[in-house]
Amino acid sequence: MFTIKNTDSGTEARTGELKTAHGAAKTPFFMPVATKLTIKHVTPMELEQMGGQAVITNAYVTYLKPGMALIKDACGVHRLMNFNRTIFSDSGGFQMLSESFLKDISDKGVRFHDPFANRAHFLKPEDVIQIEREMGTDVAMCLDHVPKVGSNLADASEATRRTHVWAERCKRYHDAHDQQSIYARRQLLFGIAQGALHRELREKSAKFIDSLDFDGNAVGGLCIGETREAMLKALEWQIPHLNPERPRYMMGVGSPEDIIEAVSRGVDCFDSIYPTQNARHCHVFTRTGTIKLDRGKYSKDFTPLDPECDCYVCKNFSRAYLHHLSRSFEWTHHRYLSYHNVYWVVKFLERIRNAIDKGEFEDFRKEFKERYRKNKDK
Amino acid sequence: MFTIKNTDSGTEARTGELKTAHGAAKTPFFMPVATKLTIKHVTPMELEQMGGQAVITNAYVTYLKPGMALIKDACGVHRLMNFNRTIFSDSGGFQMLSESFLKDISDKGVRFHDPFANRAHFLKPEDVIQIEREMGTDVAMCLDHVPKVGSNLADASEATRRTHVWAERCKRYHDAHDQQSIYARRQLLFGIAQGALHRELREKSAKFIDSLDFDGNAVGGLCIGETREAMLKALEWQIPHLNPERPRYMMGVGSPEDIIEAVSRGVDCFDSIYPTQNARHCHVFTRTGTIKLDRGKYSKDFTPLDPECDCYVCKNFSRAYLHHLSRSFEWTHHRYLSYHNVYWVVKFLERIRNAIDKGEFEDFRKEFKERYRKNKDK
Repeated sequence: MFTIKNTDSGTEARTGELKTAHGAAKTPFFMPVATKLTIKHVTPMELEQMGGQAVITNAYVTYLKPGMALIKDACGVHRLMNFNRTIFSDSGGFQMLSESFLKDISDKGVRFHDPFANRAHFLKPEDVIQIEREMGTDVAMCLDHVPKVGSNLADASEATRRTHVWAERCKRYHDAHDQQSIYARRQLLFGIAQGALHRELREKSAKFIDSLDFDGNAVGGLCIGETREAMLKALEWQIPHLNPERPRYMMGVGSPEDIIEAVSRGVDCFDSIYPTQNARHCHVFTRTGTIKLDRGKYSKDFTPLDPECDCYVCKNFSRAYLHHLSRSFEWTHHRYLSYHNVYWVVKFLERIRNAIDKGEFEDFRKEFKERYRKNKDK
Repeated sequence: MFTIKNTDSGTEARTGELKTAHGAAKTPFFMPVATKLTIKHVTPMELEQMGGQAVITNAYVTYLKPGMALIKDACGVHRLMNFNRTIFSDSGGFQMLSESFLKDISDKGVRFHDPFANRAHFLKPEDVIQIEREMGTDVAMCLDHVPKVGSNLADASEATRRTHVWAERCKRYHDAHDQQSIYARRQLLFGIAQGALHRELREKSAKFIDSLDFDGNAVGGLCIGETREAMLKALEWQIPHLNPERPRYMMGVGSPEDIIEAVSRGVDCFDSIYPTQNARHCHVFTRTGTIKLDRGKYSKDFTPLDPECDCYVCKNFSRAYLHHLSRSFEWTHHRYLSYHNVYWVVKFLERIRNAIDKGEFEDFRKEFKERYRKNKDK
């Protein structure tokens, strides 16, 4: 499923290929989030055209709406969404962090609130895997218990223990179904290591999850409010214990600066709402850092969003025009900025892969960091 | 500027070509509205690709935001918006119907409220033409006084008289500037006939506006709340008095049923927010009538929005999926439905032109009306 192509000599960065039932995704890659079965403001055709290789959906949210009957009638999420590349499904573990979703939690499973219908649903880890099998995603994620940011050792320890119990049960259920979706396609299953910001827990969790021999391993529970330094530390504690021959997925990471650091530490894939959410707040990626496009200083700026970007937004519109649209609250500005940011990150990962393959990753990272910090609108 | 190609034998329908500084638009055509210099949810590139030939912008709104300095820096609205086909500019007359814009009105001009900056602007008819010259639009509309729907004879008469005074002044100012925009391109100027729902006023206004020898003549002040029958009557009163050798523009009309009736009465161009506004309310055009996509009955419907439409939305997504997006309040559903509706109307006009050219307009109209009423979700 996963093959390594090149490994950087100076860092842990590597390129490779993750083969799934819907093609081969070159690693490292970034996937936009399609929680409700659509990326915000970007079409699946646009994502394919720009070279996007994967998206991530969400098991619990899909279970609520549109519900599994429709998903099965459509023969899975690929056909419903009309995206024919790799689709991941997150389990719903992340939703437990939200009070509008979580009711209570025990080793048996999770009682979720359904905010659409104001009722509760009890889901066991096996139920979540069954939902993912019915979605027909290419990569299913185990149900995990994500402890809140700043959890003390006792709480984090309990959440990690439960994550491990559930990981075993998810694996067993998935194996019992021949590691296949209900559409008889091979479905990969990734484990998720937790441990909050406690070193011993992070190490222990990585070792345990790794020992279960999943198709890939994820570093979870980060990017939820901790500092950047803490996030990178937690990552560094786990990476050495996650089998290098399996893909490593860092969940929730999407800022260019975080991505390149994580790649240098050996991460192969990423997902985040960062590019699209930032776009809706007028934060735009450029080679020299993020700009906040609704600032007055861009009102007469006839240059493209990023003069080095070749996306259709940069080729066709000026900052001044897009600034006008944002100040006029026109929806097209969400569309244009979302497209640009997603395009930018997809191409950024392409540039990272090229640099690794050419043995120039360290130079690339150094130049990126120097230039990226130049322009930073708060 | 305007040449007639074919005239229908049984009706007043005709095909032709309106040449402007940005190409030749085949008539009859429909233009989407880009009041704030963007169509809602649709890009100018998409409009060009689907065969859209023109859009209409707005002088008063552009004057307020982004303001004329930026427009001039950009060398006009075509470059700013990156739309290289025909662009009309409405004057702002329509905005006078809105209490958030109009302060007071006299023969001298209009005192407009600026809702963005909470101050007032006084604009003479000459000022409006100057704004349109600075926008560099291909077709400028005269400033008109649109009486409210249901205006009595005295009020409507006064508004019509003022519209005529202003029309003369607009024409004089435009002629004094060689009928050119400030970018030294030929700019067409269209007059607007008013008269509310009073026959004698409508006839008188059409005759007067026609006598001023504009490049084209518009029927204004309709589609603002009157019945469909009243609207078509008012149109019928004016058409015979508007020179058949000049293009006739019916302002504000955008429903397929109204468009085809107006074409049969001799109208050559249309603008309306109807396709995009309806899309945002989940009203979708199909060959068999409009459907309201957020209805439960479409939740498991795996057919395209309109099985006979070949737009990318119809080719790629099902009603069931788009229904899901609309029920999930995902922005992409606005985007998909807006694209489909605009595409549908643009192609509808193309079908109308083809039918006229082939001498089959009456059959086309009959079949359209029979089929279109079949499916009508309220």
